[in-house]
Amino acid sequence: MVSQPLFTTLAPTIEWRAGDLLLLDQTRLPHEMVVENVADVAAVWRAIRELRVRGAPAIGVAAAYGLCIAMRDSTALPIAQFRAELERHANWLETARPTAVNLSWGLRRMLRHARATDAKDAATLYEALVDEAMRIHAEDRALCEGIGEHGMPLIAQDCGVLTHCNAGALATTGLGTATAPIYAAHRAGVAFRVYADETRPLLQGARLTAFELQQAGVDVTLIMDSAAASIMSQGLIDLVIVGTDRVAANGDFANKIGTLGLAIAANHYGIPFYVACPSSTLDLETPAGARIEIEERDAEEVTHLAGQRIAPDGMKARNPAFDVTPHALVTGFITELGIVRAPFERSLRSLFATEGSAA
Amino acid sequence: MVSQPLFTTLAPTIEWRAGDLLLLDQTRLPHEMVVENVADVAAVWRAIRELRVRGAPAIGVAAAYGLCIAMRDSTALPIAQFRAELERHANWLETARPTAVNLSWGLRRMLRHARATDAKDAATLYEALVDEAMRIHAEDRALCEGIGEHGMPLIAQDCGVLTHCNAGALATTGLGTATAPIYAAHRAGVAFRVYADETRPLLQGARLTAFELQQAGVDVTLIMDSAAASIMSQGLIDLVIVGTDRVAANGDFANKIGTLGLAIAANHYGIPFYVACPSSTLDLETPAGARIEIEERDAEEVTHLAGQRIAPDGMKARNPAFDVTPHALVTGFITELGIVRAPFERSLRSLFATEGSAA
Repeated sequence: MVSQPLFTTLAPTIEWRAGDLLLLDQTRLPHEMVVENVADVAAVWRAIRELRVRGAPAIGVAAAYGLCIAMRDSTALPIAQFRAELERHANWLETARPTAVNLSWGLRRMLRHARATDAKDAATLYEALVDEAMRIHAEDRALCEGIGEHGMPLIAQDCGVLTHCNAGALATTGLGTATAPIYAAHRAGVAFRVYADETRPLLQGARLTAFELQQAGVDVTLIMDSAAASIMSQGLIDLVIVGTDRVAANGDFANKIGTLGLAIAANHYGIPFYVACPSSTLDLETPAGARIEIEERDAEEVTHLAGQRIAPDGMKARNPAFDVTPHALVTGFITELGIVRAPFERSLRSLFATEGSAA
Repeated sequence: MVSQPLFTTLAPTIEWRAGDLLLLDQTRLPHEMVVENVADVAAVWRAIRELRVRGAPAIGVAAAYGLCIAMRDSTALPIAQFRAELERHANWLETARPTAVNLSWGLRRMLRHARATDAKDAATLYEALVDEAMRIHAEDRALCEGIGEHGMPLIAQDCGVLTHCNAGALATTGLGTATAPIYAAHRAGVAFRVYADETRPLLQGARLTAFELQQAGVDVTLIMDSAAASIMSQGLIDLVIVGTDRVAANGDFANKIGTLGLAIAANHYGIPFYVACPSSTLDLETPAGARIEIEERDAEEVTHLAGQRIAPDGMKARNPAFDVTPHALVTGFITELGIVRAPFERSLRSLFATEGSAA
């Protein structure tokens, strides 16, 4: 794993430094770079709730370290009481964002580790918890590196890559998912162009993706979501890479609203369309995309922008947060274990078998 | 032509009332409904320049009446001097928006009419000018009615119609172009749903189209541009109708950025895709869309919103104002003379022949 620094000016999303948890406040990007030394478990809860730390992988890591912060000042407690407090804090932290799967995943893994640790005193158990959180953190970085390594050969010299929303370094503690092949190629000295969709309504593309790529020195151009097809029609895009929130067993996948339209346009122009994700994003219990429930968010995200009303009073609006792209429009899934291609029903299942046997 | 009022709460885009020119200030919509009684020719120039009146057809009408305003207080002049002043004001008004074809078209038509009018005194010539401006105004309303009449049968009970940007009543002095079939069907008592794309960067869909449809009592839902494909995939759209700025001889057409992506998605889902426009929008001297030059507007429209910076400092952005949709994705052109279908090379040419012979 190469570890030369990608960002010299951008603080890490999450950093554990001598018992302190440092979070880069993403709600203030790109205007201000503020790193918060998270004081206590209530501050961890708020940081997750208020999206100061966001992105499924990053939330999992923050939850694990957050539980350490919760227990940091309790190492003098009797071990039974320490264990009870730990369970209580984990249950409460989980309420910060109830639908974020990685939040409960990170917390449950920490609890499992605590139960499996035969510590005689709280201080020893606390050290074991910190070790486990650091392992979760290191695994996240390694997953990103793996995605980067497998996806990098797709990015040719002088090509144009389009991405949507932020499945970037800021959503993880490493190279990101959709951005991992981009950073890996950039680090290897490949010269190419990236186009970042602004991604209405919350503009994660403009605020986060364009920002982090700019900070890393990648040649990035911001476009409106509605300009993507036109940019493709001009021959400027050779490859689309997006992230995903969930992949069904047949290869249908959910991602930020706008992904489906991009996939249809890429297919129309014969442009390869890849989805980058850790293999843990595959959900074999969901047979097809039609079974993925789509969160409808507050209409105010559409009728307002940056606190200002842009639509008439009383205007009805739809605001689906995600869309589902059918597998027929996907060229491949870039995972830490390799690139998975059609027929997806079979290839995704065998990816899990590989992972299972390796574990 | 039915003339029952469509809007009871929305002021007319342009109104000529006993020698006064009243313009609805579109820059203040949807938040405020302000009608300006345009005082003099300088105020007309500013209203056109500052987009208080906008939309190609409406600009043509405003220019014609604007020239009347310019001459309103000069009816005591000797006729030769009146004619000289008229030419001078027309030349100056044309500088308000140099690329707006309808602006110079409206002004030149007024000058031609003045030259062809054998008036003995300025007052008589002034009356002839007002008559001609009212004819231009009436013709615009009639064009809209014609488009509405021919497009209305496309809108079935309970169907869903998607539109993009504002090719609406506010862009004309009548039913609009893309909205004409919608208003005609609504007036005829057909119940259906309209989805209006917000249309980044300047949000004409949210600010104007959603607003005017709401004012007319049409069932309208605002969506983000990037949600259109998802809404189509859910079976909610039966028909797309958009406007156009220019149609090439082969049927390729230019329209607001985002139209191409909509056309590709509609084609993917087998949804009929129509373009509504007066036959004067057909430009037989441009053989194909590749020859249509696309205006690239200021990157600030993408990096900022409502005066607020949304992208990082120094961010590179592309901001094509229009895109070109190839004729293969078009089901038909809805014009005041009827619906034109493929093969467009032939059908568009014969439309012009019809119009020529009728004139």
